[in-house]
Amino acid sequence: VTAGPAPLALTCGDLAGIGPEISAKAWSRRRRDGPCFFWLGDPAALKGLGVPMAPISAPHEAPALFTEALPVLPVTGQSPAAVTIGAIAAGTRLVLDGQASALVTNPISKKSLADAGFAYPGHTEFLGALTGSPVPPVMMLAIPGLRVVPATVHVPLAKVPDLLSEKLLVETARTLHAALKRDFGCAVPRIAVAGLNPHAGEQGLLGTEEQTIIAPAIAAMTAEGMNVWGPVPPDALFTPRARETYDAALCLYHDQALIPLKALDVDHGVNVTLGLPIIRTSPDHGIAADIAGKGIADPASLLAALDLAARMAAGRGPV
Amino acid sequence: VTAGPAPLALTCGDLAGIGPEISAKAWSRRRRDGPCFFWLGDPAALKGLGVPMAPISAPHEAPALFTEALPVLPVTGQSPAAVTIGAIAAGTRLVLDGQASALVTNPISKKSLADAGFAYPGHTEFLGALTGSPVPPVMMLAIPGLRVVPATVHVPLAKVPDLLSEKLLVETARTLHAALKRDFGCAVPRIAVAGLNPHAGEQGLLGTEEQTIIAPAIAAMTAEGMNVWGPVPPDALFTPRARETYDAALCLYHDQALIPLKALDVDHGVNVTLGLPIIRTSPDHGIAADIAGKGIADPASLLAALDLAARMAAGRGPV
Repeated sequence: VTAGPAPLALTCGDLAGIGPEISAKAWSRRRRDGPCFFWLGDPAALKGLGVPMAPISAPHEAPALFTEALPVLPVTGQSPAAVTIGAIAAGTRLVLDGQASALVTNPISKKSLADAGFAYPGHTEFLGALTGSPVPPVMMLAIPGLRVVPATVHVPLAKVPDLLSEKLLVETARTLHAALKRDFGCAVPRIAVAGLNPHAGEQGLLGTEEQTIIAPAIAAMTAEGMNVWGPVPPDALFTPRARETYDAALCLYHDQALIPLKALDVDHGVNVTLGLPIIRTSPDHGIAADIAGKGIADPASLLAALDLAARMAAGRGPV
Repeated sequence: VTAGPAPLALTCGDLAGIGPEISAKAWSRRRRDGPCFFWLGDPAALKGLGVPMAPISAPHEAPALFTEALPVLPVTGQSPAAVTIGAIAAGTRLVLDGQASALVTNPISKKSLADAGFAYPGHTEFLGALTGSPVPPVMMLAIPGLRVVPATVHVPLAKVPDLLSEKLLVETARTLHAALKRDFGCAVPRIAVAGLNPHAGEQGLLGTEEQTIIAPAIAAMTAEGMNVWGPVPPDALFTPRARETYDAALCLYHDQALIPLKALDVDHGVNVTLGLPIIRTSPDHGIAADIAGKGIADPASLLAALDLAARMAAGRGPV
């Protein structure tokens, strides 16, 4: 066994979803060529999935075992939700410690966790708190050929206009700009900023946020030296020709970013959290409880998340 | 000359945009095989575009001339905006009279027309008024493989939640359902309805309009016998697999409908107005004043609009 990078930490996600199944399938597809990862969760959830498990007590044991069995770092809890949350917390600590090179998270059910008293709307906000991130974490979704960042995420659409501010957009752009340079090989990142309203407001006729918030934010970004432009009419931002002009699209709300991404490629989307001290990726789908246990779940998005996390980790030194 | 269907009426649109150029190019591409159309506007706007013009005084003169020259029915006015508006009004009257088989409109600038005192936010609303349509007109956008209908259109995003109602959604679905049966060959139309909020509200955690407005509207549509389902999480509605399941997606706002459509195919989009007593299509792009006069405008979308209008007209009798 050669000394390689630390393994990736893969959390179990919601145990009622497809997380265990796609984790097992991902191990089968990557066991020979890597990247090496270990699974954090209740080992009972992997029973019956047809893959050998190897319990480990620390991440450094994983590489020697990975070809023959899926390494499992057991996480226990008083409820399924407690295991789900505990795995995220434990994985994060291991990456912060340098024992794992990146965190890859299986999907969670926000509703199930909220019902169990979980105080965060999603992974991103929880990881910001766990890592004591000095800047608010930012969610990026990536498929081959398109990266999108929604400035607001898991909030009702009706609240989006009030949540937008020049400060939010500039801070989000700073985090995105730094990540594109550090982790995505963009020497001079090109960032296109979406408008909010139809036709980007059509000079105020269809909304004024472009004039009062977005254009001033873009001017501030430009003053900081970023290569950024907009506000682009939202429906013009994702055309095949437009997508070739930028490294990432800075969007204003969840579906403005995710609708085009999933329309173009729903199978290989990766969720990346920017602005954390750790690398974190995730498959871009939900827990899919409706198909859990049927053996038909597709691990493509998880595989893309593992591969991207490994590429990002290869370009970074220790945390 | 054989007696064929009445020609299509093509309006000039904004004379500062690419309308004249793409009209001339469309004539060059369709002059031999049709469909036959005539152009309504100021003939001076076609000068220098390299196509022969043939002034006409009535639509029935167009077919005999069409192979050799672009038939032009002159429209005059005291300003460019007056010509643009007058062409729409004149073309609509000719279709209502049966002298033309369908109306195809070149793009207009809502801002320019509003500045000139035009009281309608766009073509769709103006045509509803001109034709005395008994139901509110509905905008459909179509590319090969995807038809979308936004229930609200040219309004600021912040106003969308307040504009949504069970009544609006049910009326829009009725118009869509009837049009799919009458003009698009769908014997039993399949209509998927979008949610408003991220994840369709995730059971109320991310917004409640799904529970208070959209689900009740879908229940009412179902009770009327329509084959309709939802609310579908907006970012799941346009995936390649999802698009195969419906004949049209009923969306809640402009960009929810147009972002995925233009991400997939920005060149062949057609705007169709449903619920009018006349057939009306339009290219799915703006006036593109930035490239007007350069000779580089692409007539693909206008050609698609002309072709679709002709197919729809072929399936209908006289108005």
